[in-house]
Amino acid sequence: MNVADGGMSAEAASSLADELAVGAADAARELRGVQRQLKDDWLLASANRLIAQQSALLEANARDLEAAPQFGLSAAGIDRLRLDPTRIASMARGLQQIAGLPDPVGELIEGYRRPNGLEVWRQRVPLGVIFFIYESRPNVTVDAAAICIKSGNAVILRGGKEALHSSAALLNVLQAAADEVGLPKRAFQLVPTTDRQVMGALLERADKVDLTIPRGGRGLIEYVTERARMPVLKHFDGNCHMYVDRAADLSLAVRLVTNAKCQRMGVCNACESLLVHADVAVDFLPQLEVALAPYAIELRGDERACLYLQACQPACQQDWGEEYLGPILSVRVVEDLQEAVVHIAKYGSGHTDAIVTSDLAAARYFVQQVDSSAVMVNTSTRFNDGEQLGLGAEIGISTDRLHARGPCGLRELTTYKSVVWGDGQIRS
Amino acid sequence: MNVADGGMSAEAASSLADELAVGAADAARELRGVQRQLKDDWLLASANRLIAQQSALLEANARDLEAAPQFGLSAAGIDRLRLDPTRIASMARGLQQIAGLPDPVGELIEGYRRPNGLEVWRQRVPLGVIFFIYESRPNVTVDAAAICIKSGNAVILRGGKEALHSSAALLNVLQAAADEVGLPKRAFQLVPTTDRQVMGALLERADKVDLTIPRGGRGLIEYVTERARMPVLKHFDGNCHMYVDRAADLSLAVRLVTNAKCQRMGVCNACESLLVHADVAVDFLPQLEVALAPYAIELRGDERACLYLQACQPACQQDWGEEYLGPILSVRVVEDLQEAVVHIAKYGSGHTDAIVTSDLAAARYFVQQVDSSAVMVNTSTRFNDGEQLGLGAEIGISTDRLHARGPCGLRELTTYKSVVWGDGQIRS
Repeated sequence: MNVADGGMSAEAASSLADELAVGAADAARELRGVQRQLKDDWLLASANRLIAQQSALLEANARDLEAAPQFGLSAAGIDRLRLDPTRIASMARGLQQIAGLPDPVGELIEGYRRPNGLEVWRQRVPLGVIFFIYESRPNVTVDAAAICIKSGNAVILRGGKEALHSSAALLNVLQAAADEVGLPKRAFQLVPTTDRQVMGALLERADKVDLTIPRGGRGLIEYVTERARMPVLKHFDGNCHMYVDRAADLSLAVRLVTNAKCQRMGVCNACESLLVHADVAVDFLPQLEVALAPYAIELRGDERACLYLQACQPACQQDWGEEYLGPILSVRVVEDLQEAVVHIAKYGSGHTDAIVTSDLAAARYFVQQVDSSAVMVNTSTRFNDGEQLGLGAEIGISTDRLHARGPCGLRELTTYKSVVWGDGQIRS
Repeated sequence: MNVADGGMSAEAASSLADELAVGAADAARELRGVQRQLKDDWLLASANRLIAQQSALLEANARDLEAAPQFGLSAAGIDRLRLDPTRIASMARGLQQIAGLPDPVGELIEGYRRPNGLEVWRQRVPLGVIFFIYESRPNVTVDAAAICIKSGNAVILRGGKEALHSSAALLNVLQAAADEVGLPKRAFQLVPTTDRQVMGALLERADKVDLTIPRGGRGLIEYVTERARMPVLKHFDGNCHMYVDRAADLSLAVRLVTNAKCQRMGVCNACESLLVHADVAVDFLPQLEVALAPYAIELRGDERACLYLQACQPACQQDWGEEYLGPILSVRVVEDLQEAVVHIAKYGSGHTDAIVTSDLAAARYFVQQVDSSAVMVNTSTRFNDGEQLGLGAEIGISTDRLHARGPCGLRELTTYKSVVWGDGQIRS
């Protein structure tokens, strides 16, 4: 696969987009008839080939790593880009794991008999063609191809420019495995350029592409949402809250808030804002401050929080809506549970919000009133994740309400049809 | 409620849209905490009031009927617009029936325990705010309000101009019932004008409106799809096929095709195109022609179909993709099952397609290969309908693949959240 970047004519971009879209739609039609065995054979053959072709992969990756500083990648960004034998082995294990997951295609969601004897099945089928736009992490190329194919979909992969050589080399390996087992050739394709015109042209192909999934920064997601003519499943921001109720076990609350904030900070399900019931704030906040000390978290609080915390900057209005993705936590003392719920409705992003309480009525109220993709009781927001919730593999966490909400695994990449079995019934 | 039409300033349109959107979003938040009992109380109170307020409804309807000819409505269109005591009683019964349906909100889709003891519920919750755009049928105003409220959603109703007085009068009745039982006032609102600027401004309010459902002609749906910034669930065309296989019971096939074509012609699940296996065409088509004679169906066939039919016009290429919604049927003789499936993939609209066969392998192949919202075996395409498939009530038949496919009832107007119950689990 050749890799080009920038400087395409509009005509060339549109013709490339057309080739990718038509190829994917043809492959999606073929994939509808493909059995699980073939998909799993491809996953396992791909895993073997990733290990066997390690040196070619590391070589392509070295080209990306060499160019990385000129793209202005941070040290963390360069680390995410890097492949090594351990990471390649982990990608291979990921493929084997997906091979072991049940096939979502053909699953009966429900089935029943009507009074006139008609038997109705609601049965999962693939979505069709998925256009997946993602950041510069080579492992995502492999994961996304695997998840899309296992769920019976063709996928057009459009990764970040910083990982383009690595992604192309990985695709070559997966392609060779497809040739080996007989999977349709265009079932997964990499957009061989990061020219935005090609992405723009693909976003217009609602006739061939059934769903676009953008993952990345706000700018990219807004660009995609504005241009896409087909449905879009967004992986947007997470301004996640932990609420420590009056009836919370405070040492448990310290442990949970510390985990939600500090276990990994740059991710969408990390805690960004803490709400504490006024009755326990004076006891709880100093304990929490001690626990957070090793992580050097900057605390930004409302007036009362600043009273109870040793080192606390006054929070401004903007802090309540902010996704820091780093070592900052906003803290607010609330009068009661209702005020916490109202605060979350106003400032939250509907991603993940948790309550710490031993009061059943408070837990039930919070669970019913907070309208987020995941609402948690006495556990860490960090668990809103496909693997942690048992989906097996995920392509992202949807912050949309339609079709799929929260972690998107294999089932979330399917739709359904009604199969109606009759014996000559007519409508009168 | 006052009814205005046309001639609004852009500013007035945008301020009206804002008022509707903000009111609906506020009501949607309130509706999240509303129990089933209150929703059912409102449905039953509305049913009673429809009967009690008949004379006011008929008076408003008379104003629409009087104006109907100047809008160029056909006799059939005027008939659909007309209210009479029987139709009002039938609307009231519809509300009582929806009151009897299970509440989709709170339904557990699945629940399981993770290895670390976390318990995960996937639970249905309302979508939020629905913007429903529909044709000039007063009963749809009542049905849509009922379905949206029962599923916990606020709805903004935008009906056709020809029914505006009737719809406003109906809304007043439903509103009085809401006041009586204490349902939030803005849970359902009628756009009091058919000025397109108001619709356009609402389609931009993705911040307040979660879903737009347009029902109507192709032009309207394209207008909405192009402008909407939020997800759209389309109710688009149905080019439905009946395929009569080599192994079909021919007299059964005659009965089914006649039902699918003639039982009601102007609807999206009526049969528009007939495919017949070459081995049985010579026997089948003349029998069918006799059965269709009373309905004066114009037949447009390929070369072989024209050979076997007495009165058959040659079909042109365009016929295969056409949704006639009237007394025309395109007919094609195919070599085998595969050719039928390929024809449906090429020309069908993915709405409803059926096979008539006694061959199990043929039925299974057709069911697996045809990618339509409903695939039927030995029954009429006319059964792809919310009531017929047991959904209880429907707001439309989605021709989209995402979120909901086929008939949309109460469940299809919900999304879900994950509720995670823990005992202090942290992520390591």
